[in-house]
Amino acid sequence: MDGYTVPNFLAQRAFLTPERQALVSEGTSLTFKEMHSLVLKRAAQLSKAGVKESDKTGVLMSNSLDMAVTIHALFYIGSTAVLLNNRLTSEEIAWQSNHSQTVIIITDEQCKSKAPVNICETVSIADLPKAESGLKSFLAEFPLEKPATVMYTSGTTGHPKGVIQSFGNHYWSAAASALNLGLHHQDRWLLALPMFHISGLSILLRSVIYGICAVIAPSADARLLNSLIHQQKITIMSAVSTLLTEMVQSMDGKYPDFFRCMLLGGGPAPLSLLQKCAERGIPIYQTYGMTETSSQIATLPPEDCFTKLGSAGKPLFPCSISIQNDKQNCQPNEAGEILVKGANVAKAYLYEEAELTDSGGWFRTGDIGYQDEEGYLFLLDRRSDLIISGGENVYPAEIEGVLLSHPDIFDAGVVGMPHAKWGEVPCAFITSRKHLGEQDVMKYCQEKLAKYKVPHSVRFLEKLPRNAARKLLRRKLKDILQGESGNV
Amino acid sequence: MDGYTVPNFLAQRAFLTPERQALVSEGTSLTFKEMHSLVLKRAAQLSKAGVKESDKTGVLMSNSLDMAVTIHALFYIGSTAVLLNNRLTSEEIAWQSNHSQTVIIITDEQCKSKAPVNICETVSIADLPKAESGLKSFLAEFPLEKPATVMYTSGTTGHPKGVIQSFGNHYWSAAASALNLGLHHQDRWLLALPMFHISGLSILLRSVIYGICAVIAPSADARLLNSLIHQQKITIMSAVSTLLTEMVQSMDGKYPDFFRCMLLGGGPAPLSLLQKCAERGIPIYQTYGMTETSSQIATLPPEDCFTKLGSAGKPLFPCSISIQNDKQNCQPNEAGEILVKGANVAKAYLYEEAELTDSGGWFRTGDIGYQDEEGYLFLLDRRSDLIISGGENVYPAEIEGVLLSHPDIFDAGVVGMPHAKWGEVPCAFITSRKHLGEQDVMKYCQEKLAKYKVPHSVRFLEKLPRNAARKLLRRKLKDILQGESGNV
Repeated sequence: MDGYTVPNFLAQRAFLTPERQALVSEGTSLTFKEMHSLVLKRAAQLSKAGVKESDKTGVLMSNSLDMAVTIHALFYIGSTAVLLNNRLTSEEIAWQSNHSQTVIIITDEQCKSKAPVNICETVSIADLPKAESGLKSFLAEFPLEKPATVMYTSGTTGHPKGVIQSFGNHYWSAAASALNLGLHHQDRWLLALPMFHISGLSILLRSVIYGICAVIAPSADARLLNSLIHQQKITIMSAVSTLLTEMVQSMDGKYPDFFRCMLLGGGPAPLSLLQKCAERGIPIYQTYGMTETSSQIATLPPEDCFTKLGSAGKPLFPCSISIQNDKQNCQPNEAGEILVKGANVAKAYLYEEAELTDSGGWFRTGDIGYQDEEGYLFLLDRRSDLIISGGENVYPAEIEGVLLSHPDIFDAGVVGMPHAKWGEVPCAFITSRKHLGEQDVMKYCQEKLAKYKVPHSVRFLEKLPRNAARKLLRRKLKDILQGESGNV
Repeated sequence: MDGYTVPNFLAQRAFLTPERQALVSEGTSLTFKEMHSLVLKRAAQLSKAGVKESDKTGVLMSNSLDMAVTIHALFYIGSTAVLLNNRLTSEEIAWQSNHSQTVIIITDEQCKSKAPVNICETVSIADLPKAESGLKSFLAEFPLEKPATVMYTSGTTGHPKGVIQSFGNHYWSAAASALNLGLHHQDRWLLALPMFHISGLSILLRSVIYGICAVIAPSADARLLNSLIHQQKITIMSAVSTLLTEMVQSMDGKYPDFFRCMLLGGGPAPLSLLQKCAERGIPIYQTYGMTETSSQIATLPPEDCFTKLGSAGKPLFPCSISIQNDKQNCQPNEAGEILVKGANVAKAYLYEEAELTDSGGWFRTGDIGYQDEEGYLFLLDRRSDLIISGGENVYPAEIEGVLLSHPDIFDAGVVGMPHAKWGEVPCAFITSRKHLGEQDVMKYCQEKLAKYKVPHSVRFLEKLPRNAARKLLRRKLKDILQGESGNV
């Protein structure tokens, strides 16, 4: 589809349905028309501050109306937005802005202390030059191939990679999701995940492409989110397991009938949580996606959300999934590496020549899973997190799921530790509500898991290392183990 | 988005949601899984009959389950389907199949008498070789650029042109429509327009891309269609003005609450009809589209369907519209040629080197219209149908709208006739319910139209010439006038 364009997402929406509610954020409510004119002004400010179409601009902000407006304003100028994770250390952020060659970083009060020094200019929103009127000439059309955003993937080994998401990738992703979840004009999507991750950004973009309202949550407090669902007439929310666990725990009664979809991503979900949600009538749509696929690539279809617990569903309509071992397609129920394909999949990493996908269009995700006889995807783990114990594949997520089903275990993470006889064995890290002994935990696991999957060691932590999207950072658990062995 | 593919539409749908109802046709109901296996068998039959991936295959059929299955089967083989209008004469059909170089034409009992002789092989569905099992290997992925269908446009001058619609064009069209009309899982679309036109074919394709049911109407009888809406729980229907007029006239009571959208295309709609529908609570979404745009390119947004009567709305989300006179953009309310843009617009006509669109991606439609201050599109006419009378632009559709508002006029068509003083003047053709005199009609028009727009002559016909999509064929009316002057 070379040579085709799409209209500037927000400008088109402001033209098509100017009076619809676009965004709610901490007491402020904007229509698409109002948002368009705010964005034009912000674009004029950014332009005065030196942001150029040809450059990459860093965004180091926390979720807010300001952040949403800034991202759109960069699209209006045509500058590629490099979305920087505000939970990273200053050093990590400095590495990413240096690598991406951002010319300016836009930041806010909350994040500015993390802005790197001596890499490039940094401007806080509050310090932007004033603009009397909006940007005169803005990018009215987005070429499908044009880079819209760059996001660095955590990267389990080596340096993180900057995924280039084009405007075409974002459009295909949004349309594909609508073909699965449906699109109702009264839909309102709760945005409680960070916009520097694709899980959060994609909500902002969908709201504009669909012409529906995005409600930006002021924090990820579980009670607050539960009450927002009622107050703000939320119909769809995106969440990850840890957040959802907290929401279910602090939930009184049921969600209202207009709430039609809890889109649950961020890796394999513990079955105990899914069962709890099913009992409470929360319609969970487990999903699978990553930065490289510009959000979801597989999601449960509506008819299966109470019947296929534990599955991340089937590919979205314009996407495909394949499971391979040694480049051979796997049989049903046989675990292997997950390969994905679709026009939502990014073409390249920043400053890397090689395309992400092979000649057949497939992207090797590095994740492990299987498809059942009907083609439903079940995620097992990241390949890099796989524990191979005595020749057996052990999936940390499976063990974590068992640990989390224990009434007194609040959070759990499992990694491999070296073992003289078995090569590797599982080691569990947990946070518990009341005092638990290592033996109690092991005994519980022995009842539910094959012997080789039972953790050989259990460590008790105050809190598990999770990233901004609340994804477990297993490599930080490995660091703990390595620190110990280094000390031996 | 070069290099990207989408999965085979029907095969993907049969994989994703196998048990959903796909198609209802004269007492037969099929799920997507059942339809997929029927299509595989039909593809095997067609393959045995000599249909090849590299070839173009004619489809000369009337709306039926068989026609839907045949179209999909050609996609499965990868052969481009040349959809032949069964209302054309044998000579016209022969010209198109010769021009398109179809190797085989697939036909049915109703249409086979029109199949051209000595151009290429013709096979009736009933005479296809039997197939024990389905096609072994089918086209599992559609490259976005690959030609899916060819449809010849009526062409007001010279020979008709074969519009090549790619799989990408069809997908973008379907997704764009969903972003405007929304997508509900209980949607059921009534298919009462011919599938050899884009208005009908696009319903079949949307039903598969959306995973909803298409109900093929056995005929375009107004009473039958009204009752199908109730019986078949239809939520959306596509219609053209003449058909809708008949439906409203033969309607008892109201449409049920689940009926949410009457998509009205095929050119400017008479205001009297729109008013009648508004009074009866029929949600009319006037739309504008053509073969070259693979269906709709502008459609009223839901919030405007009762407030912007007469407008074809705004562009669909990924599309743009511009009005130009002498390559200059028009002011609001200034009439000019309609230009359109979007990834649903075909790239080329068959065997013509030139692209349809200019370097900026715009396709000049040859239609005349204007946009009001808010950007709502109002269609005036085909440029080729424009009457220029004493230097004034006279739009036949406007006069036809006035004629149709007369209680005794059933159908109306207006064309220009040569005039010594004014260059051209309007001439009206009407069918009336009871006897009307020419003077009665003129007097009625004088009350409602500027003097230069009042027809100079009124002809009474039994029936107006309309094509299969019920579009008025004004050139046939011109033929009548030319015949007269030839006889003088």
